Amino acid sequence: MRRSLFDSDHDAFRDSVREFVNRHLVPNEEKFIEQRYIDREIWLEAGANGYLGLEVPEQYGGSAAGDYRFNAVLGEELARSSAAAASSFGIQFDVVAPYLVSLTTEEQRQRWLPKFCAGELITAIAMTEPSAGSDLAALKTTAVRDGATWVINGSKTFITNGTQADLIIVATRTTREKGSKGITLFAVDADTAGFTRGRKLDKVGQPESDTAELFFEDVRVDDTAIIGELDRGFIHMMNLLPQERISGAVAYLAHTRRILEETVTYAQERKAFGKTIGSMQWNKFLLAELVTKLDVAQAHVDACVAAHIAGELTAVDAAKAKWWSSTVQNEILDHCVQIHGGYGYMNEYRVARAWKDARVTKIWAGSNEIMREVIGRDLGL
Amino acid sequence: MRRSLFDSDHDAFRDSVREFVNRHLVPNEEKFIEQRYIDREIWLEAGANGYLGLEVPEQYGGSAAGDYRFNAVLGEELARSSAAAASSFGIQFDVVAPYLVSLTTEEQRQRWLPKFCAGELITAIAMTEPSAGSDLAALKTTAVRDGATWVINGSKTFITNGTQADLIIVATRTTREKGSKGITLFAVDADTAGFTRGRKLDKVGQPESDTAELFFEDVRVDDTAIIGELDRGFIHMMNLLPQERISGAVAYLAHTRRILEETVTYAQERKAFGKTIGSMQWNKFLLAELVTKLDVAQAHVDACVAAHIAGELTAVDAAKAKWWSSTVQNEILDHCVQIHGGYGYMNEYRVARAWKDARVTKIWAGSNEIMREVIGRDLGL
Amino acid sequence: MRRSLFDSDHDAFRDSVREFVNRHLVPNEEKFIEQRYIDREIWLEAGANGYLGLEVPEQYGGSAAGDYRFNAVLGEELARSSAAAASSFGIQFDVVAPYLVSLTTEEQRQRWLPKFCAGELITAIAMTEPSAGSDLAALKTTAVRDGATWVINGSKTFITNGTQADLIIVATRTTREKGSKGITLFAVDADTAGFTRGRKLDKVGQPESDTAELFFEDVRVDDTAIIGELDRGFIHMMNLLPQERISGAVAYLAHTRRILEETVTYAQERKAFGKTIGSMQWNKFLLAELVTKLDVAQAHVDACVAAHIAGELTAVDAAKAKWWSSTVQNEILDHCVQIHGGYGYMNEYRVARAWKDARVTKIWAGSNEIMREVIGRDLGL
Amino acid sequence: MRRSLFDSDHDAFRDSVREFVNRHLVPNEEKFIEQRYIDREIWLEAGANGYLGLEVPEQYGGSAAGDYRFNAVLGEELARSSAAAASSFGIQFDVVAPYLVSLTTEEQRQRWLPKFCAGELITAIAMTEPSAGSDLAALKTTAVRDGATWVINGSKTFITNGTQADLIIVATRTTREKGSKGITLFAVDADTAGFTRGRKLDKVGQPESDTAELFFEDVRVDDTAIIGELDRGFIHMMNLLPQERISGAVAYLAHTRRILEETVTYAQERKAFGKTIGSMQWNKFLLAELVTKLDVAQAHVDACVAAHIAGELTAVDAAKAKWWSSTVQNEILDHCVQIHGGYGYMNEYRVARAWKDARVTKIWAGSNEIMREVIGRDLGL
Repeated sequence: MRRSLFDSDHDAFRDSVREFVNRHLVPNEEKFIEQRYIDREIWLEAGANGYLGLEVPEQYGGSAAGDYRFNAVLGEELARSSAAAASSFGIQFDVVAPYLVSLTTEEQRQRWLPKFCAGELITAIAMTEPSAGSDLAALKTTAVRDGATWVINGSKTFITNGTQADLIIVATRTTREKGSKGITLFAVDADTAGFTRGRKLDKVGQPESDTAELFFEDVRVDDTAIIGELDRGFIHMMNLLPQERISGAVAYLAHTRRILEETVTYAQERKAFGKTIGSMQWNKFLLAELVTKLDVAQAHVDACVAAHIAGELTAVDAAKAKWWSSTVQNEILDHCVQIHGGYGYMNEYRVARAWKDARVTKIWAGSNEIMREVIGRDLGL
Repeated sequence: MRRSLFDSDHDAFRDSVREFVNRHLVPNEEKFIEQRYIDREIWLEAGANGYLGLEVPEQYGGSAAGDYRFNAVLGEELARSSAAAASSFGIQFDVVAPYLVSLTTEEQRQRWLPKFCAGELITAIAMTEPSAGSDLAALKTTAVRDGATWVINGSKTFITNGTQADLIIVATRTTREKGSKGITLFAVDADTAGFTRGRKLDKVGQPESDTAELFFEDVRVDDTAIIGELDRGFIHMMNLLPQERISGAVAYLAHTRRILEETVTYAQERKAFGKTIGSMQWNKFLLAELVTKLDVAQAHVDACVAAHIAGELTAVDAAKAKWWSSTVQNEILDHCVQIHGGYGYMNEYRVARAWKDARVTKIWAGSNEIMREVIGRDLGL
Repeated sequence: MRRSLFDSDHDAFRDSVREFVNRHLVPNEEKFIEQRYIDREIWLEAGANGYLGLEVPEQYGGSAAGDYRFNAVLGEELARSSAAAASSFGIQFDVVAPYLVSLTTEEQRQRWLPKFCAGELITAIAMTEPSAGSDLAALKTTAVRDGATWVINGSKTFITNGTQADLIIVATRTTREKGSKGITLFAVDADTAGFTRGRKLDKVGQPESDTAELFFEDVRVDDTAIIGELDRGFIHMMNLLPQERISGAVAYLAHTRRILEETVTYAQERKAFGKTIGSMQWNKFLLAELVTKLDVAQAHVDACVAAHIAGELTAVDAAKAKWWSSTVQNEILDHCVQIHGGYGYMNEYRVARAWKDARVTKIWAGSNEIMREVIGRDLGL
Repeated sequence: MRRSLFDSDHDAFRDSVREFVNRHLVPNEEKFIEQRYIDREIWLEAGANGYLGLEVPEQYGGSAAGDYRFNAVLGEELARSSAAAASSFGIQFDVVAPYLVSLTTEEQRQRWLPKFCAGELITAIAMTEPSAGSDLAALKTTAVRDGATWVINGSKTFITNGTQADLIIVATRTTREKGSKGITLFAVDADTAGFTRGRKLDKVGQPESDTAELFFEDVRVDDTAIIGELDRGFIHMMNLLPQERISGAVAYLAHTRRILEETVTYAQERKAFGKTIGSMQWNKFLLAELVTKLDVAQAHVDACVAAHIAGELTAVDAAKAKWWSSTVQNEILDHCVQIHGGYGYMNEYRVARAWKDARVTKIWAGSNEIMREVIGRDLGL
């Protein structure tokens, strides 16, 4: 079924992103996997193409693309090539961008956004802590006022772009005993004294993205580092999570579709017992199931994107999209590995790497158990 | 997520259908279940409301509602009350209607459609044979020319509206050894000599709809009984199957949503171990999953309906929708039974009946295995 | 794989049970389904064959078969013919028998067991209440001492053998505010004043067994009606639940195997698209999966039966067996229906009835959610 | 449930293997993962402990342990520590051993077995070819007679122990156009001219075992290299596959149990939202399900081992065990990753590595699709 979401402007944009991917990502694939990060020059290229400031107003160096579908196209095309590239750049153009655009002062926007859009300022967002995975309200990193400055202490983990980021939005506790009502977001420059990074984490998949633990030891910032309002960080995050989650959902499905397409082709060509394996009824019916599941999930995610553009995407809808798309992704890719037989277990095959890349999507950005909680609560249960 | 498919005209129509359902179906529920058919007077009421001729031009007594969404609304509201009512009436307004409108001569339309729209002429469509369930091209019922008449011999089974139908569209073999290219459709009056009906079939569910085996023994009709073109019956059926399948998908999801809503309410109220069962995390997370699956499937079916209106719904998309919606329906309803505990196993509970009603949807209208075949073939496998 | 559980004595017993089934159950199948109970004369026949007192000492009229494998053989052969016959008789020979043998006084044993073994005294056990399905400790039926008598008030529901039982073991609350430590079991004669039965419940499946709601209104019994010890009814039930649950598991798998065997045969014979449907790879691979799941579950249940004979079957093992076997049963039978196509939806087909019969096994005798709780608690969670 | 399979001799043997594992495998874990093979000195230690010749008669240096349960214990304990160690050593003591013991001449046994048992002769078995994964009968490697020698040409892939093996049993085609009846097994010394190895394959998991592609280019051997009978290699392989498959099944479940135990412990300790994550009903019920599935599968595999000892294990039973245990393994480990949250995606966590290690078990040793075929054929389909 033709997707009705996009028009010709988005299609043209898609072509340009494909060219970017083919020129800058594909030839460096092995290198990025080996070194476990994407070179900064690729960030600059992405910036030069206007990809990082899609939703940033032009006066701050943004490309002000016009609607969220451009983000979606960019996420899809990156994810088709590399789940980790979609994650890494996605943190910038899809997750952090709205924080810096909608929760900042004019001064902050001028300070950060031009470099952000140019790819000169790589960002990360640090919510998760070692001792409290999904329980955001329980975070232990503190920011304590000391005269005109705030002193931040604590640590964050599993932070995408963690070793490369120049600016980190960090969620801290500013008021004790107020649970989710005492959390404030700060933007911390990576060269601030007291800020250090742990080693690059050795993940099961997505090696191209650098992920790290971050440490804050008497890190001093002032009020101009506050993103949004004091003690309202939890609400800011809740407001912006739907976009982060739909962003993920869009990428997961595009990532899956690429591999599924390759698997269908493989099944058309690979022979066993004197015929193509795709002509065997079991594989044929299975692939029919996989493509159906993907198309069904796509229809839902596309409807969510349309709702997001209309300003109607709820946290619950985004939770459904994030959960379901990550579930479908992992299920489909597991079957794609199986259809590839022994080759599906070899890291040189894209399907093998995709299978490993995908596993994290059921865990991060609010684990799927958290998604169930969000949705279940909405049912009045 | 708000469904974007409908506008206020459809909403108003939905209200009218709800009133019809509440007035004519709900009070007679037990009666229809007991007698195993829906009274003819209800057909007349449906006709008087214009429901049976939604896609029939006004000059033939139709209501020419304008677009397929009115069919969808009618199907949904019937299915919310009774899966069998949706099936039984659906055969008329959603399945047979396009045959009689688009494949007929002016004379045929004038002969049949006014009564068809009024509910005075109940129809059925007879494809399936006892010895060849899903294999339409292998049908054995023959129509042999004898001068100016055709002599039909054979039998059909699992025919919805089978005991009540006044006019039956029957698929016959008119040319041997041409497989799918030698099939012709005839419309047979139920009072034609040689036509008889077997007993009402005792089905697992959907008791309100009458289902029967039909026998044709030297049934004589002439050329004016042919629907569409000679030997092109298979193509006619293939062309109209997408609407039949999307019609089913729409109804399955509405049927499911009604029961799921009731189950959520039940979980909010029923107590065990000192709290509501819906507050127990297992049930809460499970219901979150069920509502997610339903919403995801709904987005896909709604996109298919939109594509159908745009004339773009392919057989493959319809197959995906039929298959997936029936799968989701059965899976969700099984869990709804479980959440109702022992009451879920009592026929007086709607959820118990719905569970039985639903089982057939994975089998009929092209079994889900046939759907896999259709989809798999489309993948070039 | 040959089952290693049984020896030639059990095989011989199996032959005798098969003969009983073929003589007394098979010819009356339709009748029992129609009337919704098994005739009392069949109970007498079962008694005459020694089936009802398998674990009752000979001095009380029992057949003292020697080990639990005879119960298992009887349960399997009944279940192969009729899930409801296995349930109905099973309540007597497998569930109630140990209560009357191990928790009774000599006087009680003499009073009840001879007729019990002869099939003259049909029994039921009444735990579940309308307002507290799985939460046994929360039961509301009370037994209040009034001089030398106990006055029982309350109601029980979903009671197998409910309309036929001559003697009902009923769980009551004898001490308030002691939760599970204030429950006592009484054996109530069905002709005691104040005891009445509701209508026979209209269940989704298992129509041959009569199931009813039971009402106790100022029912007066004396101490000789107490089964086991005062206030220790909960412990008595907990001690005897493992046998009830393994009894169920044994029957569920035998019931499933019968239908799966028939389905394999059907798949070997039924043709579509010019070949047998069993030769189609999808069905072939699916049936391979079903038989594997059944064999795997069988190995576990057989190991549990062996453990039970050795006195080592824990409540947790029995919970695993009950849960898993009922899950496997329902999953397999659903596929068996599908393989039968439209015929699988017709009540005249055994597979259709079996599918409906099976649905309750995930709910009763401790719902599968309760089984998860039992097992999870055992993990120290 | 206590496993009834083992007696005190096996328990004592288990203790000795645990000590071996703790002394030789655990401390070298990281090293083996890094270098992607297990050091030869560990093979010598295993040999010195008698592990490699468990089923080799004493006159050839074997330990003649007595029954297959010793193999099972060894496989379980290796797998608890490292799936790859179980695979790598398992090829020797469980897969190749019976070829060299039961299909060889006295001269061959004396030539190979003493070193084989001592760990001085590492072996591999080469069936799979790049172009014919599961289709053994279609193999293209040829052995052509040239006077008194055979000339072997072809290549094999996915060969465990491929880079280290000193002796490789290779399946070749000796007679054209006889399909499975023209295959012969040869034992090729690794230093034979014309034999070369490809690079060590970069697998998704099981890095400690070396896996490679092997090339045979005019490799010359004489009749003393033939294992078993000329042209009967296929039958030899079919006869010995059941032991290979039950060997795998035993290891898969032990590997899974170790991780599941660790996950239960993790769930008991890890806190979120103010309580342990294991106390949350969702996780508690899920872990109950996982332990149930594992115990059920274990009962089946144990029954298969008992049947194997009794000489009754069929190819079909072994196929069921291999398929089901690998399925259960992968399903359980995926949930174990999820319960570990972000840590489950970090390679330093055992659960993450186990998840990757497990994926191959559904593919190798006859893919699970081949298992379905074997089982389905046995059903007469």
